[in-house]
Amino acid sequence: MAERAVFFISDQTGVTAETLGHSLITQYAGQEFRQMTLPFIDTEDKAREAVETIDAECDHGGPRPIVFSTLVQPNLRAIVRESRGLHLDIFDEFLEPLTSELGEEPTYVSGRAHGMSDIDAYMKRIEATNFALANDDGGISRNYDEADVILVGVSRSGKTPTCLYLALQYGVYAANYPLTDEELENGNLPDFLTKQKQKLYGLTIAPERLREIRKERRPMGRYSSAQQVRYELREAEKIFRRYGVPYVNTTSFSIEEISSRILDSTGVERRVRP
Amino acid sequence: MAERAVFFISDQTGVTAETLGHSLITQYAGQEFRQMTLPFIDTEDKAREAVETIDAECDHGGPRPIVFSTLVQPNLRAIVRESRGLHLDIFDEFLEPLTSELGEEPTYVSGRAHGMSDIDAYMKRIEATNFALANDDGGISRNYDEADVILVGVSRSGKTPTCLYLALQYGVYAANYPLTDEELENGNLPDFLTKQKQKLYGLTIAPERLREIRKERRPMGRYSSAQQVRYELREAEKIFRRYGVPYVNTTSFSIEEISSRILDSTGVERRVRP
Repeated sequence: MAERAVFFISDQTGVTAETLGHSLITQYAGQEFRQMTLPFIDTEDKAREAVETIDAECDHGGPRPIVFSTLVQPNLRAIVRESRGLHLDIFDEFLEPLTSELGEEPTYVSGRAHGMSDIDAYMKRIEATNFALANDDGGISRNYDEADVILVGVSRSGKTPTCLYLALQYGVYAANYPLTDEELENGNLPDFLTKQKQKLYGLTIAPERLREIRKERRPMGRYSSAQQVRYELREAEKIFRRYGVPYVNTTSFSIEEISSRILDSTGVERRVRP
Repeated sequence: MAERAVFFISDQTGVTAETLGHSLITQYAGQEFRQMTLPFIDTEDKAREAVETIDAECDHGGPRPIVFSTLVQPNLRAIVRESRGLHLDIFDEFLEPLTSELGEEPTYVSGRAHGMSDIDAYMKRIEATNFALANDDGGISRNYDEADVILVGVSRSGKTPTCLYLALQYGVYAANYPLTDEELENGNLPDFLTKQKQKLYGLTIAPERLREIRKERRPMGRYSSAQQVRYELREAEKIFRRYGVPYVNTTSFSIEEISSRILDSTGVERRVRP
């Protein structure tokens, strides 16, 4: 089957069009798609170039391209709508009911969604990222008083990427602490964690998955042996249950899903919104 | 003016509904919104609870809530559509034209967009994040041969969060290198960077913004003085121009925008798609 071209067109980064389009095209299991983002289409010339790029796909005899557009300005939307692709436009569909409900005209100013209109949000995300880095892997600092949440788990259970995602996406202050050999053996959490018990959240994962992930780092030795991985996960889960720490099994979840579940389950508030 | 409730409803994380809804509501400058995400609405019971939550806003006399929904399953969509909020649903709007164009029925299986259907994508994002951490701030490793892009700039110009975002969002291998006092003084890049010249990308920023950001870290002293900040930025930009390194001024950009511009300008391919 010929791959069908999918374009994400935006006057900004294209993240909204990508997210929207991706959630729709993944609904069709029998298709092959080739995805391309055309960001920063913010002049009529660039809009016309985008139309040429889309139409070139038709000229080459490929299947009709799909175009997901989040262009804000009506003149640019009008140009891109002239392409021969299937044009799916969130502003075309949703702006009218919203305008009528809110009783206010849209500003048609682009870039308010991911722009720096909110310098404060930028600073919060940067500070949350710095916090996650400084409080990664139990170390350098242990500013757990300032943390919104402290992720606990064995090595490579997904703590670091989840903390960074929570920081970058939501400005949430997330620290993480890897359980030590000693803690796994005696089943006790250190005092500096039990003092913050209401902030603790555990990550666990299926042993086979953890082995795969650890082997990427160190293919041989105890660290990625079946026995060691099973032992660590079993003891970690015992600790979670003993201390009443809520935890999630991340085996079949993406970083987005793990993060959303943590926010949903802990009630930690997003400090910024994407 | 009374704040209007905005709900993002999803059977998954809610990221798509949040992104879509945010780009729309920011078009209305005169409104105050209170945003709430209702993720993991994946049973009829949970859908009915969501309707109660939405309708409670109406009962309390607030303005009619806005509901952005990305529910995949038709039975859940039907329940949520019964709420008294203004219901904006991407599947309602876009599934029909797509189905007709593609000649295939949607699977109606939720979670394919951000799910672990693609373990490979998860691994790539984790590995890219580990790469960014190991190659952050010029240190621990300098695996620049493996890098897709190497960000160069003065301290706090936005290198680290941008590298992490590129890794988490797109699986791109991004290293970063902070220009040293010596390099700023003599205007030379070290050999291990000039050997990778085609991968270098510079970040610069307005002096006043950099001062604000640095003051958060160290309020006093040379590091955040107006003179020092201006000097460093001037010399960094001279280096970029001298070596023909493309660069972007990040002052008025969000992390998403900086990242998109780097991908757009360098042609570096996304290894995964969000």
